[in-house]
Amino acid sequence: MGFWQSALEVSNRKRSIQFSIMEWNMSEKPAVLVDPFFRSMDEIFSESDQCRLPDIVDIIWGRSESMPLEDAEEALKVVDAVVCSSWRYGDVLYEAANLRNIMTVSGAFPLDLDYDYCFANGIRVLSAAPAFGRQVAEMALGMAIACVRGIVAGHLAMQKGEEKYLHAGNAGAFNLYGKQVGMIGYGGLARSLHPLLKPFGCEVGVYDPWLGERYLRGQCVTPLALDELMATSQIIFVLAVPSGENRMLLDRALLELVRPDAALILVSRAHLVDFDALTEMLHAGRFRAAIDVFPQEPLDPAHPIRSAPNVVLSAHRAGSVREALWEIGEMVLDDLEAIAKGVPPQRMQRAEPELAPRYATTRVKGHRSS
Amino acid sequence: MGFWQSALEVSNRKRSIQFSIMEWNMSEKPAVLVDPFFRSMDEIFSESDQCRLPDIVDIIWGRSESMPLEDAEEALKVVDAVVCSSWRYGDVLYEAANLRNIMTVSGAFPLDLDYDYCFANGIRVLSAAPAFGRQVAEMALGMAIACVRGIVAGHLAMQKGEEKYLHAGNAGAFNLYGKQVGMIGYGGLARSLHPLLKPFGCEVGVYDPWLGERYLRGQCVTPLALDELMATSQIIFVLAVPSGENRMLLDRALLELVRPDAALILVSRAHLVDFDALTEMLHAGRFRAAIDVFPQEPLDPAHPIRSAPNVVLSAHRAGSVREALWEIGEMVLDDLEAIAKGVPPQRMQRAEPELAPRYATTRVKGHRSS
Amino acid sequence: MGFWQSALEVSNRKRSIQFSIMEWNMSEKPAVLVDPFFRSMDEIFSESDQCRLPDIVDIIWGRSESMPLEDAEEALKVVDAVVCSSWRYGDVLYEAANLRNIMTVSGAFPLDLDYDYCFANGIRVLSAAPAFGRQVAEMALGMAIACVRGIVAGHLAMQKGEEKYLHAGNAGAFNLYGKQVGMIGYGGLARSLHPLLKPFGCEVGVYDPWLGERYLRGQCVTPLALDELMATSQIIFVLAVPSGENRMLLDRALLELVRPDAALILVSRAHLVDFDALTEMLHAGRFRAAIDVFPQEPLDPAHPIRSAPNVVLSAHRAGSVREALWEIGEMVLDDLEAIAKGVPPQRMQRAEPELAPRYATTRVKGHRSS
Amino acid sequence: MGFWQSALEVSNRKRSIQFSIMEWNMSEKPAVLVDPFFRSMDEIFSESDQCRLPDIVDIIWGRSESMPLEDAEEALKVVDAVVCSSWRYGDVLYEAANLRNIMTVSGAFPLDLDYDYCFANGIRVLSAAPAFGRQVAEMALGMAIACVRGIVAGHLAMQKGEEKYLHAGNAGAFNLYGKQVGMIGYGGLARSLHPLLKPFGCEVGVYDPWLGERYLRGQCVTPLALDELMATSQIIFVLAVPSGENRMLLDRALLELVRPDAALILVSRAHLVDFDALTEMLHAGRFRAAIDVFPQEPLDPAHPIRSAPNVVLSAHRAGSVREALWEIGEMVLDDLEAIAKGVPPQRMQRAEPELAPRYATTRVKGHRSS
Repeated sequence: MGFWQSALEVSNRKRSIQFSIMEWNMSEKPAVLVDPFFRSMDEIFSESDQCRLPDIVDIIWGRSESMPLEDAEEALKVVDAVVCSSWRYGDVLYEAANLRNIMTVSGAFPLDLDYDYCFANGIRVLSAAPAFGRQVAEMALGMAIACVRGIVAGHLAMQKGEEKYLHAGNAGAFNLYGKQVGMIGYGGLARSLHPLLKPFGCEVGVYDPWLGERYLRGQCVTPLALDELMATSQIIFVLAVPSGENRMLLDRALLELVRPDAALILVSRAHLVDFDALTEMLHAGRFRAAIDVFPQEPLDPAHPIRSAPNVVLSAHRAGSVREALWEIGEMVLDDLEAIAKGVPPQRMQRAEPELAPRYATTRVKGHRSS
Repeated sequence: MGFWQSALEVSNRKRSIQFSIMEWNMSEKPAVLVDPFFRSMDEIFSESDQCRLPDIVDIIWGRSESMPLEDAEEALKVVDAVVCSSWRYGDVLYEAANLRNIMTVSGAFPLDLDYDYCFANGIRVLSAAPAFGRQVAEMALGMAIACVRGIVAGHLAMQKGEEKYLHAGNAGAFNLYGKQVGMIGYGGLARSLHPLLKPFGCEVGVYDPWLGERYLRGQCVTPLALDELMATSQIIFVLAVPSGENRMLLDRALLELVRPDAALILVSRAHLVDFDALTEMLHAGRFRAAIDVFPQEPLDPAHPIRSAPNVVLSAHRAGSVREALWEIGEMVLDDLEAIAKGVPPQRMQRAEPELAPRYATTRVKGHRSS
Repeated sequence: MGFWQSALEVSNRKRSIQFSIMEWNMSEKPAVLVDPFFRSMDEIFSESDQCRLPDIVDIIWGRSESMPLEDAEEALKVVDAVVCSSWRYGDVLYEAANLRNIMTVSGAFPLDLDYDYCFANGIRVLSAAPAFGRQVAEMALGMAIACVRGIVAGHLAMQKGEEKYLHAGNAGAFNLYGKQVGMIGYGGLARSLHPLLKPFGCEVGVYDPWLGERYLRGQCVTPLALDELMATSQIIFVLAVPSGENRMLLDRALLELVRPDAALILVSRAHLVDFDALTEMLHAGRFRAAIDVFPQEPLDPAHPIRSAPNVVLSAHRAGSVREALWEIGEMVLDDLEAIAKGVPPQRMQRAEPELAPRYATTRVKGHRSS
Repeated sequence: MGFWQSALEVSNRKRSIQFSIMEWNMSEKPAVLVDPFFRSMDEIFSESDQCRLPDIVDIIWGRSESMPLEDAEEALKVVDAVVCSSWRYGDVLYEAANLRNIMTVSGAFPLDLDYDYCFANGIRVLSAAPAFGRQVAEMALGMAIACVRGIVAGHLAMQKGEEKYLHAGNAGAFNLYGKQVGMIGYGGLARSLHPLLKPFGCEVGVYDPWLGERYLRGQCVTPLALDELMATSQIIFVLAVPSGENRMLLDRALLELVRPDAALILVSRAHLVDFDALTEMLHAGRFRAAIDVFPQEPLDPAHPIRSAPNVVLSAHRAGSVREALWEIGEMVLDDLEAIAKGVPPQRMQRAEPELAPRYATTRVKGHRSS
């Protein structure tokens, strides 16, 4: 695990860090504080990636438990980059003279970070969001097919011995092929989902106020007004990153526009929907839905959505498949390799000055977001 | 609906048909007996296709109910093509002097037809099988994702209020991305499924004794021996058309090879599997499965597969979505248009002399196959 | 090279063949007459394919020179298949009791064959046309880019020291990206060319009277009337197989419709064009062209097309790259393997009863077509 | 053309600008200095884009001629963004308090700009390089096909009446299909070229020291050492951006490794190659080449490369097709639209702190690069 780690294990930590700094000045590798807790090292780095890491950078800490804050602050003053799960280091940011890259092993940008300072001082803030796109997209597609082909309901009927065969069992079922799909938000999740839908030949309409029409057309999607999207799509995917601007974006009036033969697939955040209105309408059988995210998690055991018909429910599991966590480590490692080579990171998502102030402070109540 | 139909409505049917023949001799369009019962006209032809049909061919009958056999036999002696659901016309085949195309509106080739005579006399036998490939492929993918991502089990847990969130809820879940997929059979179903899997970047191995190695490699799949496929694939799709040669192909010994972390997706026919062994092994928790077809349908209400864990069940619904039936009519109409132009049919599947004797007489007991 | 070959080398040929028949009756492999002259064995079969051939079938002859006709006729009476370059065996067809597949190593179907007899007797006639599609498509694309980007003219200018740099050198040049492309004929060549054009995002319009509108739309092309195609396309590819019906299809009136900024790429046959009118219009600078095929080959040294401006010329070289000839052998071998397994051939193109009478007797004067 | 422009036309320019600033303070649109000379407005903006521009931003100047420097400096002190062809405004950078985006209408980043200051002050520097990728890729593919299929040589033979037909005319010709391709550099040009090569099924190896192995594998290319790439590829594309580090990268020793049946396609810059060695080896017939860029342009009329055999030459025309210039304007406009919405630019390429010091000062001698 390299020098830094053992050096830091000595009791006189201050001295050790000072000593480390001297050592690191003689190394050609970048010095990186690796402090990923709440994720463990094994969770995010495959065995082979853990082996490669010290060949590429000088690791400080590199353990699964949280680094003592006092030490972490000392280390930050000298490192080139930090790998962390949140920004718990406060004002030491202003003393971190070499720091050029803050890399979070979570899918969101840290909340308590002075982004203005970062942008004005050439410090990149990088998230592992791209590691979540593919698995969420796969789940969104799977839930959409389950919804429109009646996979869950069909299984329940088989268990009860009440199944109907062939066409008789397919009342209300339809195919994705060639259908009008609406995507609310065309960020990372949508860009991961779109290729999965391509072989189905769907027409894809997008509502994303942050993206220009020509850019969207260049992605082979049709920019739509939100009300038109809601009224015309047969499968609606809610994929937008939550922000201060899109809370309850899908209010009752917009939900009323949904076609009776449509399916709403909610995978990014419940934040975007009037969940009470949605629950009510699903109970009334207005349309179908598949829902992975809820306004409060764990969801109240008595919440009426649990018994709504024509709904597929999932406990915020779209982005939490264990094997996909290693993609986080792959991205971190590949981007550290780029940094070591003196070229820009290529795989993690960077915070942008325009968007940083908009990142919602909208964590789901009750537990830490992935 | 054209002349033929009204002509045939008069009570003296014989005379009417004779008269029709005279008329038809003066038309330039092909004469076609359209007798699709057990499917109705509305089921297979969209409204606009029903309108176009008489512009392209002279229709005889063209009704949803079965044509009286005596009349149908008279008609067959003069028509260029017949659109039917099975061959119920017996030896009139040998008197059908103009007949060049027998087009079935079902996914299988007719059972009681003298194929040798057809091949030796330039009569094509065409099935609507390609109309079923896409919808079965969609269901196979949906069931596979439901199986590996725990969509059905996750929903049941939500209903019971026993769900676990995030990673805790994903024990045993995995992604399709990059996984080793095995396909048993690389015919129409597989060729419809393969494009849906492409964006997942899976390695696809195929066992198909009817196809050459170079052909398979040209399709970007790896030819595999059946035991190797069973032992190495993480998702196994059973897609082969049933034949006299593949009954119980997946016997207990081969099923024993399946990896504990694998999922078996059975969508073509239960005929290919030792279903008792499969049921037993699923009850023992040996691997996961998704099953759309059963040895007897309706399945015995007490059949133990109904309560097996880690299994997604469906009542032979993969190929029976109502809207897809119009694809049958589209294919029939497009190929009649080709015939009328004097060019070969392009969309339906043609019977081949080498394979006709092998078409299994393996209909699922208990009901008519789609 | 197996038994058959050596057996046939004995001087008493008649007896040898009779003996071979006896032997073959005891073999389980199909017996195949391999008589590919004017192509040599080495030309069409790679070394490894030549090694595999005798494992799959019992070879009769299998040499590069032409089999003596008398012997060939004897052999045809017993073989299951024949691999040949033309049908020089006359009426022995009617005595070829086992013959089920006639496989030509050329891109065209044999001229002097009784197709009616073949279709009425379950004999497939197969051509190696698909082996030519890819190389012709590559050349068509290369000639199209050369034409619209001025590659040939730009090179000539460099040689003469008269080049102009950057934008000054690109007067009249345009990009393929997003342009309206017209294809005349959507057979094998077009289906090989279409994938090469896909990354350029061109709109593709097609004129093909043999194909239905829905089929064409399913291929992501727009069916167009010929005059509309000629008037609106910026790149026009002439790709149709010559037939009795399409001689001089592009007459002067249709050529007059071509846009001044368009390029006409002629790769299938000069047969389809009024070549005199085309030559005249190119000399007048009406539009650009790239031409691989001529009404007479070798072309008259004084033919005015040689000096026309804005034209790229090629001596019928699009389908004659040496390495591609091995694809012919691959197809023959793969399809023989299928036949040996008792399944239908998959790779060669089969003659269809509707089209056989239309195959043009339109070989280019002056030399044998590839 | 909006208020700013007319305001600036009054003789007292200083006052006008001051007044403009006042006005702009009351506008909600970003203020943008549009000063694209040496490109004209019409060259880079289509008519419809010129119409849209003032709806999106408040334009200062917006003319084809160069803005008087004194005025431009005044304007820079207030604008949010500048659209320019180079940085001719010197130290006013340090007074440009609102400036957040410097957008160049050229394919290169400006030379005389204080990048350190920009990065430390949150000023993005954006180039129109992506507008050049597609047209250069098309030319590279066209030149490669011309090279391996002998399109230029074949045309010359036709003109002289010395052509050979069919296989005789294809000595040495080969197909791209399935060949080993090597790319030197996997930046924008390579990423535009790669999709054009995909349908040819080539194996693509890449040498790019700035990119990590896993990233490259994720792009479906194989990372290769430079010597291995040179020795094994049958088509070698030189695509790297020139930098201080890659001058003469392909020296004589590396060129000696090239296979005799290979083709070298040089499209990014002659800077990367020992051009004398290359010329010598081409004259010796060691391999084939297609060359669009030269060490000095215009090239010496007596330069021996002009008469080298098996070479296709082009006068730096790959990236200078007129219609593609409008893509520059599209990118600028789309990114201004993003800026106006308060979201990050999406289409132009941004300078990165790691790479800015490496941008080569390697303009081709003799004329301004595109």
